[in-house]
Amino acid sequence: MLPFRVLNQENIKEILDMRNVITLVEQAYSLKEQKEASLFPMVFHEFEPGKADMDIKSGELSGANIFGLKLVSWFGENPSKNLPSVIGTVLVLDSRTGAPLGILSGEYITMMRTGAAGGIGAKYLARKDSEELLLVGSGHLGPYQILATLMVMENIKRITVYNANSLDRAKEFCRSVKDKLFTLLEPYKEHDQAFYNQMIQRIDIPISAAEDIKQAAKKADIIITATPARKPIIKKEWVQPGTHISCVGADMEGKQEIDEQLFDGTRVFVDDVNQAITVGETEIPYKKGVISENGIVAELGSVILGEVQGRVSDQDITVFDSTGISLQDLLTASYILEQAEEKQIGFVTKL
Amino acid sequence: MLPFRVLNQENIKEILDMRNVITLVEQAYSLKEQKEASLFPMVFHEFEPGKADMDIKSGELSGANIFGLKLVSWFGENPSKNLPSVIGTVLVLDSRTGAPLGILSGEYITMMRTGAAGGIGAKYLARKDSEELLLVGSGHLGPYQILATLMVMENIKRITVYNANSLDRAKEFCRSVKDKLFTLLEPYKEHDQAFYNQMIQRIDIPISAAEDIKQAAKKADIIITATPARKPIIKKEWVQPGTHISCVGADMEGKQEIDEQLFDGTRVFVDDVNQAITVGETEIPYKKGVISENGIVAELGSVILGEVQGRVSDQDITVFDSTGISLQDLLTASYILEQAEEKQIGFVTKL
Repeated sequence: MLPFRVLNQENIKEILDMRNVITLVEQAYSLKEQKEASLFPMVFHEFEPGKADMDIKSGELSGANIFGLKLVSWFGENPSKNLPSVIGTVLVLDSRTGAPLGILSGEYITMMRTGAAGGIGAKYLARKDSEELLLVGSGHLGPYQILATLMVMENIKRITVYNANSLDRAKEFCRSVKDKLFTLLEPYKEHDQAFYNQMIQRIDIPISAAEDIKQAAKKADIIITATPARKPIIKKEWVQPGTHISCVGADMEGKQEIDEQLFDGTRVFVDDVNQAITVGETEIPYKKGVISENGIVAELGSVILGEVQGRVSDQDITVFDSTGISLQDLLTASYILEQAEEKQIGFVTKL
Repeated sequence: MLPFRVLNQENIKEILDMRNVITLVEQAYSLKEQKEASLFPMVFHEFEPGKADMDIKSGELSGANIFGLKLVSWFGENPSKNLPSVIGTVLVLDSRTGAPLGILSGEYITMMRTGAAGGIGAKYLARKDSEELLLVGSGHLGPYQILATLMVMENIKRITVYNANSLDRAKEFCRSVKDKLFTLLEPYKEHDQAFYNQMIQRIDIPISAAEDIKQAAKKADIIITATPARKPIIKKEWVQPGTHISCVGADMEGKQEIDEQLFDGTRVFVDDVNQAITVGETEIPYKKGVISENGIVAELGSVILGEVQGRVSDQDITVFDSTGISLQDLLTASYILEQAEEKQIGFVTKL
């Protein structure tokens, strides 16, 4: 029987902070590029179309001695049963022995690694002097996108938030987001006062709801889309030269957040080519023939490793299609397990 | 946070008995036939060809309100590290909410449900008057195959066991198997004395090593193959009219235990058509054109439900290709979780 750790969301919140997750996600992308990590085919099942589905994303990071999977289920009617609609579980195993190492609640990991991905897209592809961030979507992912972007971009002066369905919800998001950001920064308060102070300064900027998405998109240096949209929200003609767009919402067939024409004449990067063209933001433009597989400049790992140039000029429009890959979850989960062992957090049993 | 149960192998041994597993596996096959259960695509990865691999078999049994997966890894060099070479983990979730219900050690479940499958093949396809059982393979699966078959077949008078590589190992198996069977029958000793006595009588028959596989196959009424073979062990010309063969060993590309010609002119049943022709015993004959998809009579669930006739005459040779499907593991695991809750076994945490 093998030692096996079980970590719930509270355990994970105790351990995880965004700065580390950014490092871990960059590492996951890099290992993939170095062929020390790979994705296994995704499994997707709809229990009831539009009402309930689940997917299993799995993969291995031999470069980090782990493999495993994340199973995410979405049951739209759960809130009426007092349950979250999205429930995720991450299972991590040792890639040298096949032994299961632990199982972790997946929701917080997902939010954090998705936030990190959006930020990393900006870090490697946006103009260093970017000042205006437009966040499209005002849901659960929002605060994590903002935090990660502020951590990696030094010059953000203003954030606007757009909700395609409700201005009120965007306003409500803007009213509450700073408290959320303060909470997410708590881990640094004691351990790294300098970084904490720096971040507190960075979030001390106006965050306001966008009433006119056209104007907001025109002014933006960085656009992050984090919605479940199935119709493009951002039109090509609004996007100015020099803009970077991180798309983190699309993760299944049919989802689309930005104009497919934005994949024509722009520098497109993805986390995984195969996922991008099958379930990512790249899917629709790929299927409509706006972009071919060769039209994708590279997976972001190659930019992180300095093998491929991200932005070539200040006039480029860059796109990062973050579909969300199992390697992000697995490397983050593996880090959490190590920390949990060191700090004796969670429950250890024999499996 | 949701209640979540962790059950290790010892917990599971405390709960599981073969009679129940036979019922559960029949139920799993039936639910599949009734479209109240389905398999998701299998994920397979080789870490190092011939040395280490893993697969993820998943599926849903909406008819039993569950879904989930079993991840099995095989690391051939583990024994030198004092670890088992095969390690399995079963994750069960609620198909009405997506909530994870528990995680279970998978090895014992696998042995039991695989034994049940071999026996169920005989129960529905072998002649009722079958007396001679030939077990090909003398590994870990063996005792479970024998026990299940003896539970469902009343007239077995003799068992022979063949090991293609070592007569000594077959002899050693025969020397020790009855003790193992007694252990597996323990659960009934207190709770169902009549059944226990009946089974003790049934196992009180000669179990001996087969020196000559040709003669053993010719005499057999039921043949069960439970090996990792990649070359056929049983030749077609040895198999007499009226024989039933359950093949439980083949579960990945390239494995083969019986002559592919045994798929010509026989009544072939499978647990799942797609798995059978891609990774089961049916794979090689299918790829060689000996049998087509239409040549498979049916999935066994349809025989259990009485929709399709199994054996038509006493002269038929019948074949059951048990590839091993996730539904067997999941329904068994779900039963274990229910029992564990009732008996307060295992560890409960919040995920």
